[in-house]
Amino acid sequence: MKVQLLNKILEVKEQIKDWKKENYTIGLVPTMGALHAGHASLIKKAKEISDKVVVSVFVNPIQFGPSEDFNKYPRKIDSDVEICESLGVDVVFNPAAEEMYGKNKNLSNNDLTFVCPPYNYVDCLCGKARPGHFDGVATVVLKLFNIVRPDYAFFGQKDAQQLFILKNMVKDLNLDITIVPCPIVREEDGLALSSRNVYLSMEERKNALSISKALREIKKLYNDGIIDVKILFDTAVSVLDKHLELDYIEFRDFETFQPLKEVRENTLVAIAAKSGTTRLIDNEIL
Amino acid sequence: MKVQLLNKILEVKEQIKDWKKENYTIGLVPTMGALHAGHASLIKKAKEISDKVVVSVFVNPIQFGPSEDFNKYPRKIDSDVEICESLGVDVVFNPAAEEMYGKNKNLSNNDLTFVCPPYNYVDCLCGKARPGHFDGVATVVLKLFNIVRPDYAFFGQKDAQQLFILKNMVKDLNLDITIVPCPIVREEDGLALSSRNVYLSMEERKNALSISKALREIKKLYNDGIIDVKILFDTAVSVLDKHLELDYIEFRDFETFQPLKEVRENTLVAIAAKSGTTRLIDNEIL
Repeated sequence: MKVQLLNKILEVKEQIKDWKKENYTIGLVPTMGALHAGHASLIKKAKEISDKVVVSVFVNPIQFGPSEDFNKYPRKIDSDVEICESLGVDVVFNPAAEEMYGKNKNLSNNDLTFVCPPYNYVDCLCGKARPGHFDGVATVVLKLFNIVRPDYAFFGQKDAQQLFILKNMVKDLNLDITIVPCPIVREEDGLALSSRNVYLSMEERKNALSISKALREIKKLYNDGIIDVKILFDTAVSVLDKHLELDYIEFRDFETFQPLKEVRENTLVAIAAKSGTTRLIDNEIL
Repeated sequence: MKVQLLNKILEVKEQIKDWKKENYTIGLVPTMGALHAGHASLIKKAKEISDKVVVSVFVNPIQFGPSEDFNKYPRKIDSDVEICESLGVDVVFNPAAEEMYGKNKNLSNNDLTFVCPPYNYVDCLCGKARPGHFDGVATVVLKLFNIVRPDYAFFGQKDAQQLFILKNMVKDLNLDITIVPCPIVREEDGLALSSRNVYLSMEERKNALSISKALREIKKLYNDGIIDVKILFDTAVSVLDKHLELDYIEFRDFETFQPLKEVRENTLVAIAAKSGTTRLIDNEIL
């Protein structure tokens, strides 16, 4: 069966209505396109547990800061559709920004209704460097939820803070959607897959490898019984390539998002750093 | 059939699921209780156009400012349930604040996911005097929408700014809910019904009557062909009792919420004023 490429909200809603009548379960994989093996793993998981799968491809303007890479963010809708087709996706939803946010709207909180996750989860880690980012993410994801009305929605653990915030949003807003987290997919040498990896020069890519290496080192020490965050932090710093511009290394309880002094079960260790001008993130859950 | 009084979100969701299976349409009337004839008119409308009617009774803490009347706001759940019973309501949903927002949560944007309507609609009229009020309203209403999943939701035109903001929220967040506005219900002498009217002394009530009188005067002049907002504004000021503490008299296009210099069709004329310590609002759509 050929994948349907839909651009209009109403078309998607009509299709969903038909599926709901048949009692099909629906899985949603929200993406910004430029699909790679990480996305493919989300889609495969979605196929596994839902009757119908919708992949949204939308480079969401309201989650980019004014100095960020919205314009140069990779767009490859043709190959995205091909990948979805090959994986048995039912609908690719690829709306224009005007379709999502209306015409003649200022894409700010002057003109749009925003979903604002708690400061406690937003004003830290990636949210600190990217003010407004998670408001934009939560807003577009809630809109997609309301359009697609999925039973399951699939998010990569790579964006761990996003995953946490969206799980919390579902709970706070009383939505009946199961958020399914999916493990990070890596290159053979350990680099976490990201649509932004295409920005990296060979040199920058080599330096970036030290991020996943630092995480592996922390995991090893933790498995050896070291739980003191200061020791683990210092180890990571010593492993990270000196050419990287470190943003943060954080240790958080992944249930409460509280920062920790001692690692325990379900601790998120997250690193963000720039290699050249490209901001990269990676993490490990201990 | 006896009305069901439910306190738990899960109980409501179970009931809704059963109704959805039977393809019943669902009407939701969100209230803060202390039901009066204004609410009754919403409920009657809901009964008229939906198969099943849910009335929520919840004095929502997050829409009250720190110096506002959250604690003294009238609570009369027994008589509310009686009124609902007599009007043929199917479910009264009366949750505790902990049920809605969770235990051990700080009821602020530090801990909770908020829905934030556009500044352009919030930072004016009642929102100016009540910062955060409409964020609290939009948040609780979206939660109620997600719990009850209504086809129709009923709101009084008396809270015209709220009505406008919620209609806009439904559009912005791609919800499939029809917002049904219901006309203002008044006492015989013109006073708009409000749960806060119980705060008024005889003297304060008498002074408050000049608010609806000012609106009638504006309507009369408009029907006589006067569209200049300055003239209409000055007329209202001259009619309003001098003991009232005027907050605003506003003329807004009720489609765009733009302030107007000349009245045209679908213009909202809204007045807010304090009589004694009680803040009253009233409006007319020309």
